[in-house]
Order: sequence, then structure tokens, then C-alpha cells
Amino acid sequence: MKPLILITNDDSLNAKGIYALIDSMRGLGELVVVAPKDPSSGQGKAITVNEPIRISKTVKENGLTIYKCSGTPTDCVKLALDQILTRKPDLIVSGINHGSNSSISVLYSGTMGAALEGCVERIPSIGFSLCSFNPRADFSGAMKYAGIIAKNVLKNGLPEGICLNVNIPETENIKGVRICRQSRGYWAEEFVKREDPSGKRYFWLTGQFRNEEPNAEDTDEWALSNGYVSIVPCHVDLTAKEYIETLSQWNYE
Amino acid sequence: MKPLILITNDDSLNAKGIYALIDSMRGLGELVVVAPKDPSSGQGKAITVNEPIRISKTVKENGLTIYKCSGTPTDCVKLALDQILTRKPDLIVSGINHGSNSSISVLYSGTMGAALEGCVERIPSIGFSLCSFNPRADFSGAMKYAGIIAKNVLKNGLPEGICLNVNIPETENIKGVRICRQSRGYWAEEFVKREDPSGKRYFWLTGQFRNEEPNAEDTDEWALSNGYVSIVPCHVDLTAKEYIETLSQWNYE
Repeated sequence: MKPLILITNDDSLNAKGIYALIDSMRGLGELVVVAPKDPSSGQGKAITVNEPIRISKTVKENGLTIYKCSGTPTDCVKLALDQILTRKPDLIVSGINHGSNSSISVLYSGTMGAALEGCVERIPSIGFSLCSFNPRADFSGAMKYAGIIAKNVLKNGLPEGICLNVNIPETENIKGVRICRQSRGYWAEEFVKREDPSGKRYFWLTGQFRNEEPNAEDTDEWALSNGYVSIVPCHVDLTAKEYIETLSQWNYE
Repeated sequence: MKPLILITNDDSLNAKGIYALIDSMRGLGELVVVAPKDPSSGQGKAITVNEPIRISKTVKENGLTIYKCSGTPTDCVKLALDQILTRKPDLIVSGINHGSNSSISVLYSGTMGAALEGCVERIPSIGFSLCSFNPRADFSGAMKYAGIIAKNVLKNGLPEGICLNVNIPETENIKGVRICRQSRGYWAEEFVKREDPSGKRYFWLTGQFRNEEPNAEDTDEWALSNGYVSIVPCHVDLTAKEYIETLSQWNYE
């Protein structure tokens, strides 16, 4: 039986990136696509609990089955596993995102939210992101590496509780792959403040990424700014084990 | 100058839990509340990028300033730090959530999304959750321990990149505090499938938590089911460092 590959993203089925991902997975297995109806960037691991979720199905001429889902990227994975797929997928791939999800962006990313969900469900999962927000970005390098990395994961598997965060620079001359740790950084927010026609204030979230360790060669940010694909193995256990001992010495009475 | 404490939650300003948290922080510092206008459970670290965010301000008779925000819990923290507060807070507290956020629920939790955001911004941050979804739950035990733990954090600080996930059992006889690791577990989803009046299908997300290591005494789940408050130190670096070496040996050509 061919491997079953579930494909999702956060930019919706209107984004070029998901078709790049579909094309790079062809030949690796049976593909099923379950993706958000609307753009869902920044959804992180959000789930839909206060309203119902709808799905609709399309079958393409080439046999590809595509489901549009009204929920978040994480909902897409949950619904696919519980209601849509008839067997457990061998691989979940998410993306290819329009825009980097390196460093701290992994926390806010809907693309990685879906991959982390696959990981929680004990399915090898990968999130792919291209370092370009351009809707017409060149995905050729990203597609090549998505195929290579997916083949590796299908062959070698991934340990329970670990998934991959893959970011790809938008350059014609990718130098290769580096296995990295997540760079320390944050988004320096600068909300744009406006007034609506009735004089009421509103805010748009914007901001600039600040890399706190630009010279650390073992980080994803360094790899990307030096022309490499970055792969960060991510786990879903957030425990900071190194701090348990210190906390145990506090006084709780 | 008194410590500045930012208070938020995900259950909105209509929830009993946030007033329990406000009351348990009184006397520890100057309090400012910035919380979601609407219930935002399950929002994880979602941010609002595709629509504007609105805030409105109320000042209570006792001098407490409360801001209602149309965004997610993470947006509340970002807006508070960038647009509302005039100095950097000494502590961010989120909750007290109606319902447990132990084990894997930390990933989906809006309460913990806000605490993790404080952590990204290098501010000592704590998420508090009571193991009861009852809107009229008894918060007395939770309030006591919220005060004790917040005092400890104000006194000792927290390392950069680490925040606390505190869960509190709803019992009159809390046995004390245990510092724990996040239990391995997942939500076994069982979507409820319905049809609307026009015959179209929709789904409600539901499910049951499965603890994969019920006998592990160092986990948050064990602590809670044995009557203890659980504190898990959480970090925002998801890197699974132990797997970098293995990944480096794969073939990427």
C-alpha cells in the first residue's frame, strides 16, 4: 500500500504554496488535502471550540481529493484524522508557507500548529515555510527540499513527540541543509493606530523580528541568512526540566 | 514604586476566574487588566493579523483599570505592552482559567498563550487554571496558591524564556505544591456530526483527554489527580536538542 500523506497549510487553498507542496509530494504516496477555507496565518495551535466547523469536498480530475475546512490548521488535522481519512496517515506535511516560521515565529504559526498537531497524534509531521511573503514567490528550491526531506521522514520516521520545522530561503543558490536550534528572538511590536469614520480607534498588529543571537551559527536564523535550508526538530513537551530543581526550593506555604 | 502586574485571561471579563485572580493579586502591586472581550478558550498563541483590534477602557471605583480587547489573549499582552502600559510590568498573570491546562492542553490554551507571550517578551509570567469548567466553581484554594506563587515570582524572578503553568485541583483539601513535568497525553477527538435545517453537515469539536503515563509521579497529571497544585516550568524554545545529531546524519542530496 502506498504511504498516505495528509497535506494542509494555513494560507488556504488560494495560496500558491500549497500547490507547490502537493506537487513536491506527488510520487511519494497517496495524497489527501484538508486545508482552511480562509487564510489562517498567525493561528498557532488555535482550535475552534465556540462554533461549529464545516467541510466541503472536491475531487480533481487527477484523482486528488481536496477538503476545504472552515476551521484552523489544527482543526484541519484533527478533522482529517477523526472524520475524513480511512487510515492513519504515514506523514503530515503543512505549507509551503508564504513567509518564514523560524525562531519564535514557530509559536504563532498556523503552518507549524498543524505539524505540531500531527506530532501530538504520533504521526511524523513536517511544516515547510519559504522566506518570502510574495504571493507569486519562486517555490522551486523549496519544492526540491520538501521532496528530499519528506522522503527521509518516510524512510526513517521521527521519534514520538518530535516534528520538523523546515524553513527555506528564497534563493536560486541554496547551499544545502543545516540542522539547527531555534534562534532566540522576539517580535518588537509596533501597532498601527487608526481611527474609523466614526472616530473610534482601532489597531493593526505589525512589528519587526529581532534576532537576539545573530552570530550563533547553530541557529535557524543564521542558516537562513547564510543561504541554507534550516531544519529544527521541535517537541511538544514544553517542560523546562533544568528549572524544576530551583522551583522545588521555593516556599509555598 | 509598587510592582506593576498585568492581568489577563482567555475566558473574558464575564468569567468568575479573572475576578478571583484580581482579588488574589491585590496588595502585591499596581494592577492593570487587559482581557478579551469574548470567550477565547482554545486560542493557543493565535494572534490577529487579518483584522483590526479594538480596545475599550473602564476605570472601576476602586481605581482598578480594565481594558476589554477584541483580540486573542496573546494580542491582549502585545497590546498592553506596546500601547497601554506606561512601564514594563514586573509580572504577568493569566487566568484563573475555568478548566485544566495541564499536559498537552498547554499548547491549545489561550491562558497559557498569554503567559508564553509574556515569557517571549522577557517578563516573568504565570498561567493559572482551576480543574473545573463550572462557571460558579470554588476558586478559594486557587486564589490562595495564586497569591503564594505570584509572591515567589515577584521575589525570585524567573529565568529569561521560562514561564509557569500552574494548575489547581478543585478540592477543599489541597495537599500542597508539586513541581512537575508535562505529562505525555493527547486529546482523543470525537467530533459531533450534525445537520443544519437545510441538510448541510457541520461538526463540533469535542473529545476526551488520554493520559499516557498515569503512574508517573513526576507529572502534572499525577499531582492534580492526587490533590496537589502542579507547577510546570515551560520554555518557549521548542528545539528537541537530543535529536539534532540524528537528523544531521540523513542524506539531503
